[in-house]
Amino acid sequence: MESSTLVPALRNVATRLRIDSIRSTSEAGSGHPTSCCSAAEIVATLFFAEMRFDPQDPHHVDNDRFVLSKGHAAPLLYAAWAAAGAFDRAKLLELRQLGSDLEGHPTPRLSFVDVATGSLGQGICAAVGMALNARRIESTARTYVLLGDGECAEGAVWEAAQAGVYHRLDNLCAVIDVNRFGQSRATRWAHDLEALARSWQGFGWHTIIVDGHDVSALLEAYRVAKQTEDRPTMVLARTLKGKGVSFLEDRDGWHGKPLKHGEQLAQALGELEAQLVEGAPEPPPPLAPMAPGRRPATVPQAIAAPAYRLGESVATREAYGRVLAALGSADPRVVALDADVKNSTFSEHFERAHPDRFYQMFIAEQVMVGAAMGLASLGAIPFPSSFACFLSRAYDFIRMAGISNLNVKLTGSHAGVSIGEDGPSQMALEDLAMMRAVPNCTVLYPCDAVSTEHLVVRAAYHPGPAYIRTTRPKTPVIYDAHDEFHIGGSRVLRQSDRDVATVVAAGVTVFEALKAYDELAQEGIHVRIIDAYSIQPIDAATLLVAARQTGGGFVTVEDHYANGGLGDAVAAAVGEEGVRVHRLAVREIPRSGRPDELLERFGISARHVVDAVTRLARPAVAAEPDAVPR
Amino acid sequence: MESSTLVPALRNVATRLRIDSIRSTSEAGSGHPTSCCSAAEIVATLFFAEMRFDPQDPHHVDNDRFVLSKGHAAPLLYAAWAAAGAFDRAKLLELRQLGSDLEGHPTPRLSFVDVATGSLGQGICAAVGMALNARRIESTARTYVLLGDGECAEGAVWEAAQAGVYHRLDNLCAVIDVNRFGQSRATRWAHDLEALARSWQGFGWHTIIVDGHDVSALLEAYRVAKQTEDRPTMVLARTLKGKGVSFLEDRDGWHGKPLKHGEQLAQALGELEAQLVEGAPEPPPPLAPMAPGRRPATVPQAIAAPAYRLGESVATREAYGRVLAALGSADPRVVALDADVKNSTFSEHFERAHPDRFYQMFIAEQVMVGAAMGLASLGAIPFPSSFACFLSRAYDFIRMAGISNLNVKLTGSHAGVSIGEDGPSQMALEDLAMMRAVPNCTVLYPCDAVSTEHLVVRAAYHPGPAYIRTTRPKTPVIYDAHDEFHIGGSRVLRQSDRDVATVVAAGVTVFEALKAYDELAQEGIHVRIIDAYSIQPIDAATLLVAARQTGGGFVTVEDHYANGGLGDAVAAAVGEEGVRVHRLAVREIPRSGRPDELLERFGISARHVVDAVTRLARPAVAAEPDAVPR
Repeated sequence: MESSTLVPALRNVATRLRIDSIRSTSEAGSGHPTSCCSAAEIVATLFFAEMRFDPQDPHHVDNDRFVLSKGHAAPLLYAAWAAAGAFDRAKLLELRQLGSDLEGHPTPRLSFVDVATGSLGQGICAAVGMALNARRIESTARTYVLLGDGECAEGAVWEAAQAGVYHRLDNLCAVIDVNRFGQSRATRWAHDLEALARSWQGFGWHTIIVDGHDVSALLEAYRVAKQTEDRPTMVLARTLKGKGVSFLEDRDGWHGKPLKHGEQLAQALGELEAQLVEGAPEPPPPLAPMAPGRRPATVPQAIAAPAYRLGESVATREAYGRVLAALGSADPRVVALDADVKNSTFSEHFERAHPDRFYQMFIAEQVMVGAAMGLASLGAIPFPSSFACFLSRAYDFIRMAGISNLNVKLTGSHAGVSIGEDGPSQMALEDLAMMRAVPNCTVLYPCDAVSTEHLVVRAAYHPGPAYIRTTRPKTPVIYDAHDEFHIGGSRVLRQSDRDVATVVAAGVTVFEALKAYDELAQEGIHVRIIDAYSIQPIDAATLLVAARQTGGGFVTVEDHYANGGLGDAVAAAVGEEGVRVHRLAVREIPRSGRPDELLERFGISARHVVDAVTRLARPAVAAEPDAVPR
Repeated sequence: MESSTLVPALRNVATRLRIDSIRSTSEAGSGHPTSCCSAAEIVATLFFAEMRFDPQDPHHVDNDRFVLSKGHAAPLLYAAWAAAGAFDRAKLLELRQLGSDLEGHPTPRLSFVDVATGSLGQGICAAVGMALNARRIESTARTYVLLGDGECAEGAVWEAAQAGVYHRLDNLCAVIDVNRFGQSRATRWAHDLEALARSWQGFGWHTIIVDGHDVSALLEAYRVAKQTEDRPTMVLARTLKGKGVSFLEDRDGWHGKPLKHGEQLAQALGELEAQLVEGAPEPPPPLAPMAPGRRPATVPQAIAAPAYRLGESVATREAYGRVLAALGSADPRVVALDADVKNSTFSEHFERAHPDRFYQMFIAEQVMVGAAMGLASLGAIPFPSSFACFLSRAYDFIRMAGISNLNVKLTGSHAGVSIGEDGPSQMALEDLAMMRAVPNCTVLYPCDAVSTEHLVVRAAYHPGPAYIRTTRPKTPVIYDAHDEFHIGGSRVLRQSDRDVATVVAAGVTVFEALKAYDELAQEGIHVRIIDAYSIQPIDAATLLVAARQTGGGFVTVEDHYANGGLGDAVAAAVGEEGVRVHRLAVREIPRSGRPDELLERFGISARHVVDAVTRLARPAVAAEPDAVPR
């Protein structure tokens, strides 16, 4: 289409997107119409003159991607996909209703949403991952991401800024809708786009400042972005919040407020309808995606059984690194992301084997997880890993990965006080709580190298987010290479028909439980020992059998704080049966020391297990009154 | 002291700091000597020629502050304080031992550490808070913070960069030890200090590039920083990792590795000792802190009782804002921090009353919490608040606030599915799990305006971190202004001597429990209703009494995911007594809808409470076999 007809066509699209956004939010009685109005030309030009995609097949991997990082402008996104023909425009009026997938903020319940947004600063991190994925599958698809200006306060945005430049993502084009207002006040930059551009330039981005309501200027910016090599482009678009409606335009105090039915809504719609250019054509349909390039095969190969000898000492974190490299050889969808600790998590094994699928994010856990979300949304199986404690830095991303049910396989090393001398800042003691709270997140905690290998493979092919907890010190191999491990499973390590209690452990405490078993056995006390390597889902069936067979007394022991971890998982599984659960866990802020000293000091060593079992098995005799010898 | 004698004096200090760092880490058998060596001149010049402080009184509020944001260089910090006379240098050899407070990374167990560091990117956020605190108490104390170059990948650093400029913190001087190596490889910038400086300049910082081993150049940089007005200064110091030891200097692969006793250690110490300038004087003792300015009184005034009428509808988030403003009037130590949601959390009430103690951090939750940590470490009582779900963005900071046991009083609004149409990205459903996992964090969840007011005041004056969960919808006032609420308490709302079960609720579900009570009572079923407004610590005594008196069946109901919240807290309190706890909670990813629809759909409405109690109170009769009529 000629520019002379395309421009009015796109203007009309933008106006109709405004009308739809205002109408749907008024119908819903909530939402963010003014945040939609500012970005209408940005979205209209992207959808109808820039992006190549098939509206009938939003999952097509060669579609250009659009990520609405400013997720509260969801009505605008929905209106654009409806205008592109993905669904019936009439459905827009079901916005925010329980029966509709057109939620307040976008989620992948909608086929055209790859990752849920609505927590600001995350969309651009996911976009980094999508751009990396296009490179992985050798697709020419480009990734576009729309941010708000207020969103640029988030540190995650600047992690993405660094990752985009480091990885030379010239297939990534971001746009900021600089409408100068946040939720409660003007942003730090207001309309000083040069100042905001300096921040992006400072990190090495190519920046272009445009009038965000000038359709031609936007098209030219996208064109220049596409020609820019070796670095991503940031289009800073000067816009007016509430653009197009006289009483909303560039006014503070209208964030997140729908127009009232009646005069207010009628006036707004009237003003907008008057802006429609009569006789302008419809824009052309979106360009079809580019023909795919060569695709790596996606049929995973078999993975060899673990090659460890019983009794050999191997850290689970090292077994993780080894099996991850093997997984990468067996399946080209497997990728790894690091935050400059690859020699601690042992993801360096993967890097050595598959350097092109190993993404270094430096010490930036948010973009590490965020990029993994983007990669996962397009078919990769990403393993981002760091010290487990530092995954807490990315908890909001993990929360959103749960909402999107993405195949992100997190691994956290250096869990618990067993790391020793580095001290509490490096010890993950709340990670199980954090991960278990995400209802669809699988949580695995292997104790030896063999179970680690099996469980990493299980996690890779189990749908949805997963977390694997690994340990710093070496631990003995106790399983045979052909033993079976599965999500929701456990291993009963010791049992007899004389068991008087059940000890449930995982990770390093399995070995404390086994030591305790030996000590107790010498005293003639027999207990069942269960390795609960699958913390979520937990093996309730095996626990309940143990409860019935061992008299009901449970001791749990974990290298984790008392709340939210293994003890709570076991109690939730057996508590409704009235089973008593005595929890051994870390109950105060720990400190530096040797691993063995710390297990002892913080109440989770074999001795503490022995004591707890002894108390359970032999209820304390009431203190006798002073014996008076007469 | 004349420059001609000061410079060799400081060089000798730096050399001795290297010697102490290497010796102590070798003795410990772990630690980061090379990360200490690169920063020795930076620390030597700050401690002995720039900072004004009393080494015998590290808590003096008018001391200049030093924050080691690169916390793994702890041995250097300890050596500097020992050199300043804060403690006996011989103790340095106890580094990382269980009996010593000289931990692997600094914690406030040491009098000269204000905030624990070791999670990179946090120290500079705390430093922002310390600089704000100096302004609050009208002190001329300056804040110095030392970062690593690898650390600059963290988004939190760039949140601090923005906050420092927005708040015009010319009393803040940061230094980056640009030794070009991270843990596992070179940093993104390596030794291109100009590139790194451009990022800081892009955000508006004054930058100075120096040779970080040139004592005179460092002193001049600090002098210029002190004269810089209206913005903070970043000194980018070009250094060599392992500086001073030939086989360590500027070599990759030595991160976090101590020297082995024997030849390796002897050679390093020999080389360093040879660098000591013979005959150079000792440096002068640190300059005394500046005389304090006018200080606000710190005796808190009484706070008026809540002024709500029974039955009135008030959102707990609004009651939070009102009482926070009143607290601010009663106590000048109370400050508030916002992430551009003050009109949702209602902290805008505080801003209106106390604009000089209200710190806008824009949409940057990490620096909001991090700055609160710095403020709290120096005697302020900070209330950072945002949507509860977005506090997950700052979980690593909250974890570290727990390690430091800081008086940070977090408030999260918009908890749970009860927010309604905005959808899952805006609903906090894992916040209780997240906060309960921090062992010394108080967790409060009031259901009405009166209990909110009381509990906010209780939280303010309870030592250590606290979290207050507030709700979006209005709820009826059910308490009298003079009712008592305390940390670790609860309120029994309904009871009789015929109770057949106990329902434990908190926040919005209290009203569902009360509705259920009425319905059950009509059927002649009496239950005890407990408002567990103190989730951590929970009122175990009251729960155990209820367990004994109501037959042992418990139903918990919470607007939170099933793991880590109220149900787990109750089960942990009564589970060891063999009490059965049936948990009603949100068990899947929710979606947009009306609040009442969502409570119903996700299993936490009055109807679900009625059903659960009914099942508990009237055990299901075994299904009868088909009645055969003969």
